Amino acid sequence: MTIVRPLRPGEGGLLLALTRALAEHHGDLEHLTATADMFEHEFFKRDSLIGALVAEDGGQLVGCAVWHRSFSTFRGREVFYLEDLSVLEEYRGRGVGRALMQALARLALERGLPSIYWVMMGWNKAGRQFYESLGAEIEDNTCHCRIHGEALARLAQ
Amino acid sequence: MTIVRPLRPGEGGLLLALTRALAEHHGDLEHLTATADMFEHEFFKRDSLIGALVAEDGGQLVGCAVWHRSFSTFRGREVFYLEDLSVLEEYRGRGVGRALMQALARLALERGLPSIYWVMMGWNKAGRQFYESLGAEIEDNTCHCRIHGEALARLAQ
Repeated sequence: MTIVRPLRPGEGGLLLALTRALAEHHGDLEHLTATADMFEHEFFKRDSLIGALVAEDGGQLVGCAVWHRSFSTFRGREVFYLEDLSVLEEYRGRGVGRALMQALARLALERGLPSIYWVMMGWNKAGRQFYESLGAEIEDNTCHCRIHGEALARLAQ
Repeated sequence: MTIVRPLRPGEGGLLLALTRALAEHHGDLEHLTATADMFEHEFFKRDSLIGALVAEDGGQLVGCAVWHRSFSTFRGREVFYLEDLSVLEEYRGRGVGRALMQALARLALERGLPSIYWVMMGWNKAGRQFYESLGAEIEDNTCHCRIHGEALARLAQ
């Protein structure tokens, strides 16, 4: 049986393992530079921006929903942002992702937040089907942009 | 001459006018439910998640870069998120957007943040050219997802 609960102090390394599984699924392991210590610090420091719900099955963490506080200018209000949703491959198709999204929806409503936003890769057909089954609205053909490293330093000059 | 500076208390209504111009450009005016009072409250409350840089020209606000604090699990660190970049149509092509992005890059570096993220619409060719000229990396074919209203309430049940 799967239980969904908040991440506990000391589980930063376990959460990192789930994040790594997601990075592999996205073929993006090279960009994963977080460490267990960073997670331990960032998730449990005072006034943290972020939090995680985890799915536990038989004493093992098999999935997570990592959120951070966010803001929508169009709404003029704070909203929830789902940074990562990850379920270990061998535990997929058993309702773990849905249980995590349900717990996240409850947390959003408890906090008085009107919506949850996230980004999905366009190739993720299983993800699309799953999110649509939850009632999500999906806007296609957007681009995820970033500037960092030397380009950021150059722009700042 | 254009000056870039932080938004000041009392300018919530002026910022809303710029946000409205952006919403019109995106054909998305129906989703703009923010009010000047909401902006005034949210941008200047203690420990606010958000802030805005504005471009002023001849005493008028002609552009803005609205940011909020965000977090990257892959990096394990806080990052900057650019929620809106907007320049009034008649002031485009004069370097206002670049000046705003430069000021945002400086602010990110001052805060010790390693990167700025944002979402761009796939149809925005002028935006792509502009952001690429700044050194941004653009990942195509992502989807922007959200769940809100009745669907959020249903999911939480």
